[in-house]
Amino acid sequence: MREYNVAVVGATGAVGTKMIEMLETSSLPIKHIKLLASKRSAGKEKTFKGETVVIEELTADSFEGVDIALFSAGGSISQKFAPEAVKRGAVVVDNTSAFRMTEGVPLVVPEVNEEALKEHRGIIANPNCSTIQMVVALEPIRKKYGLDRVIVSTYQAVSGAGVSAIEELKQQARDMLDGKTEVTAEILPSAGDKKHYPLAFNALPQIDLFTEDGYTFEEHKMINETKKIMSDDAIKVSATCVRVPVLSGHSESVYIELKEAGATVKSLQEILSQAPGIVLEDDPAEQLYPQALTAVGKKETFVGRIRQDLDVETGFHMWVVSDNLLKGASWNSVQIAESLHKLNLVHVNQ
Amino acid sequence: MREYNVAVVGATGAVGTKMIEMLETSSLPIKHIKLLASKRSAGKEKTFKGETVVIEELTADSFEGVDIALFSAGGSISQKFAPEAVKRGAVVVDNTSAFRMTEGVPLVVPEVNEEALKEHRGIIANPNCSTIQMVVALEPIRKKYGLDRVIVSTYQAVSGAGVSAIEELKQQARDMLDGKTEVTAEILPSAGDKKHYPLAFNALPQIDLFTEDGYTFEEHKMINETKKIMSDDAIKVSATCVRVPVLSGHSESVYIELKEAGATVKSLQEILSQAPGIVLEDDPAEQLYPQALTAVGKKETFVGRIRQDLDVETGFHMWVVSDNLLKGASWNSVQIAESLHKLNLVHVNQ
Repeated sequence: MREYNVAVVGATGAVGTKMIEMLETSSLPIKHIKLLASKRSAGKEKTFKGETVVIEELTADSFEGVDIALFSAGGSISQKFAPEAVKRGAVVVDNTSAFRMTEGVPLVVPEVNEEALKEHRGIIANPNCSTIQMVVALEPIRKKYGLDRVIVSTYQAVSGAGVSAIEELKQQARDMLDGKTEVTAEILPSAGDKKHYPLAFNALPQIDLFTEDGYTFEEHKMINETKKIMSDDAIKVSATCVRVPVLSGHSESVYIELKEAGATVKSLQEILSQAPGIVLEDDPAEQLYPQALTAVGKKETFVGRIRQDLDVETGFHMWVVSDNLLKGASWNSVQIAESLHKLNLVHVNQ
Repeated sequence: MREYNVAVVGATGAVGTKMIEMLETSSLPIKHIKLLASKRSAGKEKTFKGETVVIEELTADSFEGVDIALFSAGGSISQKFAPEAVKRGAVVVDNTSAFRMTEGVPLVVPEVNEEALKEHRGIIANPNCSTIQMVVALEPIRKKYGLDRVIVSTYQAVSGAGVSAIEELKQQARDMLDGKTEVTAEILPSAGDKKHYPLAFNALPQIDLFTEDGYTFEEHKMINETKKIMSDDAIKVSATCVRVPVLSGHSESVYIELKEAGATVKSLQEILSQAPGIVLEDDPAEQLYPQALTAVGKKETFVGRIRQDLDVETGFHMWVVSDNLLKGASWNSVQIAESLHKLNLVHVNQ
């Protein structure tokens, strides 16, 4: 059996750390793992399957001999180094937004559009965390009843903004619990924006920067990526993306309108209970519904609170939760690598 | 000028405490204030406009000589004592859900339907916190363009669940920050339900108990109360109510579809900027949008992030925030009392 040299770019980040964990549990046959990060982190050590691995500084030549490179070190790093990796024969699975909407770059959630991998020319994009869990939940329903419309409001965890944002939230929470009236906010809602606000005991309706039309980039990501992954530009998608003081685990209040009539809460529950990557947690009588705290550390997408709209027959509401660092990022990337292996696509046809 | 004897029932609760504060700032001419609570709290002292007031035990006879009684001590207390107060000539403003949907009981948000007070027969109901701020934001838009449909997802603060729930959240947050893996959850999501879950660093898609159809009572409150306050049963309203780890200040992601075409983000901003009780905070370029932390302690409803749906011409999204203990409860009740005074309605016609 073929074995792969795998590189993780951004090995010390919140997602990179989880990528290493997910690779440890993966069925992907790994010959050698290379952990890459900035100069600052080079020389630090991590363990992989019990072995110590020294982190190396990322350079273009790091990818010599690498078969699969998982990137999660920010969009500008991917822009610069993903083509270098491909040039050296590696297939790149990129977890940043750098190439997601680029034509010719498959945007893949294996449960939804694994087949799109066949078109890859070296780079495969991993969708945005909040998009992934939503399309996992909606695709089985779409297959059966068609999907006319999606309106989603998100409750996103801070870990999507990185390790330092997690620490910022924790420090703010500690300070507020200690009765301090002024707390430090230097990162959230978006490190790249001008103003910063406390997230502790707050809800911030801004993730990423604003665009001209008043939507944020995060909201546009959910809208555009959903259409690309489902290969259907006609689906109406609308999103309001909100950061809440949760460490890990994105929750989503999702409203859908189906193309065809005939769906019931029961039929949707049945479809979802048999769908790949989904755990149905939907029993109001037992107060069973997905929660961020119970989803953390798990690879699946959890769906519950499915109910029919009271006015629109084809309208349904649901609550979708997943670990944004796992299915929303690292696990989906590793799944893509597994699919590439399964479909014998770990080679670059430029 | 007529001056009133005012009673506050539930004077030691989260809302009752704010009712006293709001009465202190109110223009309502108050002759005497009576603070009522359970036997357990009787004898404790509070101050009102610099004077010490001793809390008395609530009995039916407490209402002798009372003109206006503000209730916020739970539905069963209102069920039992509001009729007793009315029998003794007091007008009751009830902040519980006990009488909200009762025919003949006006359900009032002064900015929206002050006129409904004229029909009162002794009891006026104060709507649910999450409903109030939403109808304040939507009514000016409805007046101009008509309202066909509302889909709301809430981000509700814990203070709506009372003082002990606030303490529970704080303790959970402290314990989790200290690295404890087991935290105590005895109240949330609903004190009256079987199971309890941690809210700290979590999002709980349950407020109040579940009903047969999979919606919670809180969600039905938003749906039914909106129709009653706006006197329009044809408005399609749908709600997903979620508790988030915020101490005070409810946030709402609201999607609306208007009956008439022609609205723009600008026209809605203009309407809302001139509407009573609303502060428009809507400037994405300056990262200006409503936040729970900045709304707390203020009486207004804050609206921002207004944007047109990308597919539906009459569809608009917005973010609505207000202090659930003030406009969502105590301030709206005191406003009702002010309106009763202004309209000369502080008398009971049974």
